[in-house]
Amino acid sequence: MNDFKAWSLQIQARTESALDALLPADHISPQKLHEAMRYSVMGGGKRVRALLAHAAAELCGAAPEKTNVAAAAVELIHAYSLVHDDMPCMDDDDLRRGKPSCHKQYDDATALLVGDALQSLAFQLLSQPGICRNASQQLEMVHLLAIASGSRGMAGGQAIDLASVGQALNQSELEYMHIHKTGALIRAAALLGAYCADAPAPEKLKAIDHYAQSIGLAFQVVDDILDAEADTATLGKTAGKDAEANKPTYVTILGLSRARDLARELHENAIEHLAPFGNQAQRLVQLAEFITRRSF
Amino acid sequence: MNDFKAWSLQIQARTESALDALLPADHISPQKLHEAMRYSVMGGGKRVRALLAHAAAELCGAAPEKTNVAAAAVELIHAYSLVHDDMPCMDDDDLRRGKPSCHKQYDDATALLVGDALQSLAFQLLSQPGICRNASQQLEMVHLLAIASGSRGMAGGQAIDLASVGQALNQSELEYMHIHKTGALIRAAALLGAYCADAPAPEKLKAIDHYAQSIGLAFQVVDDILDAEADTATLGKTAGKDAEANKPTYVTILGLSRARDLARELHENAIEHLAPFGNQAQRLVQLAEFITRRSF
Repeated sequence: MNDFKAWSLQIQARTESALDALLPADHISPQKLHEAMRYSVMGGGKRVRALLAHAAAELCGAAPEKTNVAAAAVELIHAYSLVHDDMPCMDDDDLRRGKPSCHKQYDDATALLVGDALQSLAFQLLSQPGICRNASQQLEMVHLLAIASGSRGMAGGQAIDLASVGQALNQSELEYMHIHKTGALIRAAALLGAYCADAPAPEKLKAIDHYAQSIGLAFQVVDDILDAEADTATLGKTAGKDAEANKPTYVTILGLSRARDLARELHENAIEHLAPFGNQAQRLVQLAEFITRRSF
Repeated sequence: MNDFKAWSLQIQARTESALDALLPADHISPQKLHEAMRYSVMGGGKRVRALLAHAAAELCGAAPEKTNVAAAAVELIHAYSLVHDDMPCMDDDDLRRGKPSCHKQYDDATALLVGDALQSLAFQLLSQPGICRNASQQLEMVHLLAIASGSRGMAGGQAIDLASVGQALNQSELEYMHIHKTGALIRAAALLGAYCADAPAPEKLKAIDHYAQSIGLAFQVVDDILDAEADTATLGKTAGKDAEANKPTYVTILGLSRARDLARELHENAIEHLAPFGNQAQRLVQLAEFITRRSF
């Protein structure tokens, strides 16, 4: 097992155990809601956003145990968005991470409330005392996550995505959508990790910001490549849904080969910003590799 | 026009103009989402939560202009909950404040995203710099609103409400549901108003907390009385829905006359806690009167 693989397994395990400790126990009322929240969050996914938070924290000098809660908060926002996206009025997807999606396992009303309550929980966690030494910096973290989640971030990206079905988007319109839909939260994950350090250096914050914007887009390009290539079993969610739903993707706009070139180019852009920090940025560099090389 | 009526009109106007200024303009992308957010928030409702925030702020010595943003944040959480509650998978209500509800005016996917984005916006506003002189106190405000909104507050109350359809609840089970479903956010509204003061006195915070818990319950009892009595035109939403949906209410459990007695009793409990503060608490006292005397 190489060094990055060992590190990422460790961070994933740390994230699972933080989420397990931070989610309300399912014997606490309302039990069904808490059970469904746990069902939707636990035991799934690569925890890419938590990995990014921890890698950025490492560059800025924050210990992993100081980064747990912020990383968990971002994963909760991501989990809520998946629960709502899978609902019949959105993507209507029955499968998520190889299991029935939340509204299939429970019902639509429960899925709606699970998403709502996971969003609240993210802000509850991120505002609990002691995430940062400095309360003003912690308020900035809350503000950043809220903007990244809202109508000019993730939720707005979803709205643009919905409006794009059946539309002939060009590459820049597609990019605009993804910058909001997935890019905003990926950027927030990295920056929140950095803010877990007591006094993150401004030049590091700036580099992390640039890195995260490139890698966020790369992540989506790779997702589109995977969706076009993979079958349902490998993906753990229903494959080929995008093409079927007549949704524009990087593959439908650019073709598979140019989409791969774009992923490589975004990957190079991302790590370019980290060069001044040498070995301190190794996790972010390795993570960029991990994100963009999933498919080739 | 009496003094309270003039005050409440002023606070309502102040709240409308704060919300108008704080919601993203509908010419900003994604336009449809921003338009639907404004449609769901603006120009409707009595703004009871904003009135509570301002009345509590007045008792603690915070000026109205210092309380605007916190009051708006609570109203946004309330508005998001109405949008999601009206959706077909929840209460399936076509009418809200005399207009088509959000999913009828737009569509289910838009209503889902409107609710999601309004929740994010509430936390974005409450974490913006300068709500409080003290950043730690402001973090506590964010934390309080998040808990009140989440699975052990409003969203949890909704889950209990859903589970209660067709069940024979007793009064204490019904109370438990309402303490979560509406009580938590009403309590948060009053406490957030108080926290807008630079250093709210602990005995005032405690009195406001007790007051808000009693008045929150009274509010729900009165709502049940109104729902049982009023017709659709007066209510601005579909009347008699609760009985039709076989939902337990204070009226179905206690009967109309004992429900009215309970509202009076809760009203008396609420204002009892304010006695030590004399005239400083006049708005809270008048508001309690306003909330519980709506129906008789």
